[in-house]
Amino acid sequence: MYNKTMYGLGSRRSVIRELFEYGKKRAAEVGADKVYDFSLGNPNVPAPACVNDAVREILATEDSTAVHGYTSAQGDAGVRAAIADSLNRRFGAGISPDMIYMTVGAAASLTVTLNALAEEGDEFVLLAPYFPEYAVFVSSTGAKPVVVPFDEQTFAPDLDAFEKAITPNVKGVIVNSPNNPSGAVYSRDTLEKLCAVLSAKSAEFGRPVVLIADEPYREIVYGDAEVPFLPCLYPDTVVCYSYSKSLSLPGERIGYIALSPSMTAGKEVYAAVCGAGRALGYVCAPSLFQKVVAKCVDARPDIAAYERNRNLIYGALTDMGYTCVRPDGAFYLFVKALEEDANAFADKAKRLGLLIVPGDDFGAKGWVRVSYCVSHDMIERSLPAFRELMASYKA
Amino acid sequence: MYNKTMYGLGSRRSVIRELFEYGKKRAAEVGADKVYDFSLGNPNVPAPACVNDAVREILATEDSTAVHGYTSAQGDAGVRAAIADSLNRRFGAGISPDMIYMTVGAAASLTVTLNALAEEGDEFVLLAPYFPEYAVFVSSTGAKPVVVPFDEQTFAPDLDAFEKAITPNVKGVIVNSPNNPSGAVYSRDTLEKLCAVLSAKSAEFGRPVVLIADEPYREIVYGDAEVPFLPCLYPDTVVCYSYSKSLSLPGERIGYIALSPSMTAGKEVYAAVCGAGRALGYVCAPSLFQKVVAKCVDARPDIAAYERNRNLIYGALTDMGYTCVRPDGAFYLFVKALEEDANAFADKAKRLGLLIVPGDDFGAKGWVRVSYCVSHDMIERSLPAFRELMASYKA
Repeated sequence: MYNKTMYGLGSRRSVIRELFEYGKKRAAEVGADKVYDFSLGNPNVPAPACVNDAVREILATEDSTAVHGYTSAQGDAGVRAAIADSLNRRFGAGISPDMIYMTVGAAASLTVTLNALAEEGDEFVLLAPYFPEYAVFVSSTGAKPVVVPFDEQTFAPDLDAFEKAITPNVKGVIVNSPNNPSGAVYSRDTLEKLCAVLSAKSAEFGRPVVLIADEPYREIVYGDAEVPFLPCLYPDTVVCYSYSKSLSLPGERIGYIALSPSMTAGKEVYAAVCGAGRALGYVCAPSLFQKVVAKCVDARPDIAAYERNRNLIYGALTDMGYTCVRPDGAFYLFVKALEEDANAFADKAKRLGLLIVPGDDFGAKGWVRVSYCVSHDMIERSLPAFRELMASYKA
Repeated sequence: MYNKTMYGLGSRRSVIRELFEYGKKRAAEVGADKVYDFSLGNPNVPAPACVNDAVREILATEDSTAVHGYTSAQGDAGVRAAIADSLNRRFGAGISPDMIYMTVGAAASLTVTLNALAEEGDEFVLLAPYFPEYAVFVSSTGAKPVVVPFDEQTFAPDLDAFEKAITPNVKGVIVNSPNNPSGAVYSRDTLEKLCAVLSAKSAEFGRPVVLIADEPYREIVYGDAEVPFLPCLYPDTVVCYSYSKSLSLPGERIGYIALSPSMTAGKEVYAAVCGAGRALGYVCAPSLFQKVVAKCVDARPDIAAYERNRNLIYGALTDMGYTCVRPDGAFYLFVKALEEDANAFADKAKRLGLLIVPGDDFGAKGWVRVSYCVSHDMIERSLPAFRELMASYKA
C-alpha cells in the first residue's frame, strides 16, 4: 500500500538527522550542557540584521497580497535581477536573470536540477567526501551515483580516478567547494584540471558533461582562500545556491539555480528546470524570503565567529593527536577516526556525549565529520570529552 | 542532455500559469484597467492581521537561530501539536501530532503523498472537474491518472463511473471539496456514497484504497454549506492541506499532510511520507511560517469579500444567459462555454480582455473557469466585456 523505497528512506533517515533528533532527546533527558552536538550544519550565528530589518520593512510598506502572493514559478523578476546583478558585479559572469530559477533551498536546487537533466541510464559523478543526500537525490531520479575517491592529504579529488569515472554514461558531476564534510576549498588549479577533463570528455562524447556546482558555502571562507565562480571556468555549469548558510536561514528554504550564460541548449535546460520544479511540486520559492534575499543580496555572515571556532577546535584536536586537514571554508572539520570503523568510533564518542557523524555515508570510510557551527562555549566544554575519547584508544 | 518530459512540462507550462504571465505582460502594454484577469487562484483578500502580527512578534521575541533554523523534517513538534489540537477540537478526529508532516504548500502535500504511495503499475483516480496539476503530479510518480466524469447539473462525481473506475490497479483517489475549478462542495451524502464504494472495494481487494483529501479550500465556504472532515468518514484518508487560501499565503508555501488515526499501516505510510519528502528535496517546511500558522491556527479569511464577489458575478453572468452552477465554496465559477470548443471560447474572451481558463485540462471539455478572488471593482468593470462576449455568439 506504500512505496518501499520511500519507506526505506523515511524509516532509516539520514545519519545526520538521526543524530540531531537523538541530541534533542538526550538533551531533554540529561541536560543540554551534557550533550555536545556537532551533528548538524545548522548555523549558530544569527542572521545578519538586514534580514529581520528587511522582513519588517516589507511588511510595513508592501501590500499583503503582493508580499504573500504567488510569484512567477521561476521567481520574482526583480529578485532574479538583483541576484544576477550581484553575481555579475562580483564575478563578471554574465548571468542573465532569465537563467535564474528561485528554489526552496539547496536540496531543492539539486533535486530540480537532477530531475531536469537525468534520463534513463544516466550516471552522476560525486567527489568523495560528499554530502550523503547527493546519493539519495541522484538515485531518486533513477540515475546512478558514481563515487570518485579523494587524496587524504589535501581532500582534493583523485584526478586520475576522476578522468576514468567520466564515461559516456555520465550526464553530470556534482562539485561542492567549500566542501561539506571536509571544509576543503578546492584550489583554482584543481578546479581548472577538473574542468579540463570535462572539456576533453565533452568533446570526445560530442555533448557536454554538465558541472553542477553546489555552493551553499561559497561565502564561508577564511583568510585569503579563493572560491572561483565555476561558470567562469566551464561553460556548461549549473550553479545550485542556497542562503541557508550565508544568511543563516536554513529553515526558511530559499536559494536558486543559475545557468551559465554559455550553457549548451541553455533555454531548453532552463525549461527542463522549470518542468522539474513543477513535477516535484515546487510552485514557487517562499515569496517573502525571495524579497528578503534581494534586499540582503550582498550581506555576509559573521565569518569571524566561525573562524574563531575553527581555530579553537582544529588547534585543540590536533594538539590532542587527532588527524585532520585544516579547513579553509564551510564549518566542518573532517577527522580521522581512531579505529578503522568510523561508526564504532562515533558510537564511543556518543557515549561521552559527543555527537559526530561517521563518514561512511560521505563516501569516506574511517573519517568523522565535526560541525563547528555551534557555540564557542560548547566547543570549550566538549574538549575534555574529546580528550577522554583519545585516551580510551591509548589505554 | 536534458530530460525531455521535464522540458515538455517546463516549456508548455500550465494553461493557468500561461494566462497569468500573459495577463501581467498585457497589463503592462495596454494598462491594468483593460485586463480582467480571472486566471489565477491567488487570493486578493489580505492575510488576516494575525499573520503579520505573528511575524513581528516572533522576530521580536525569539532567537534568530531558532526562528530561521532547520526544524525536524516532519515539522516543529509544537506546531504539529497546535494543528492537531485545532483539528481535534473542530472535528473530534483524533489526529495525532506524530501523524502530521508539515509541507511546502498544497502541491508539495500532494507530490509527497503520491510519491509515498505510488508503486509500479498503480493508478490514481481523479474526479472531474479536477485541478490540472493532479495529472502532472500523478504521472511524475510513474503512476497513471484515471478520470471519472461528473454530473453537469450538480458537479458531483458520476457514482456508477466511480465504482467502475476503482479497479485492483487503483492505489488511491483524490477528492477535492470545496472543488477547484467548480466551486462545488460535495454533500455529506455524496461523500458517504464515495466512501462506501471505497470500503467495499478495499474489502474486495484485501487492502485499502487510499482517499487523498486535497483540502486547501476547506475554510472557504458560504452560507451553511458543510465540509465533512474525511478522516471521520473513511479510515484510510490522507489529508493534504495548505494555508494558501485560508490565510491568503499562497506564495509562502506552507501546509501539511495529516494521516487518519485509523490508517492501515499508518506508521509505515508516515515513514514513506518522510522518505518521499526527503527524496524530492523537501528538507523542512519554511520555519518562520510554521510558527506563524501555529499562532494563527484558528484564524479565518474574509469570507464576506469572496461571497460578495460570488453573488455579483454569479448573478450577473446568469442574468446575461450564461450557464453555471452556483458555487458554495472556493472562489471559482465554472461556466459553460458558448461553443463546443472551450479553448476557442476562451480565446475570444481573451481578445475582449477577459482571462478565463478553458476547462479541457480540468477534465471538463466545454467549460471555463472564472476565478473571482479578485477585486470587486474589477468584476464590475469586466461585466460589459462578458456581455459583449455573449452578444458575439448571438449575432
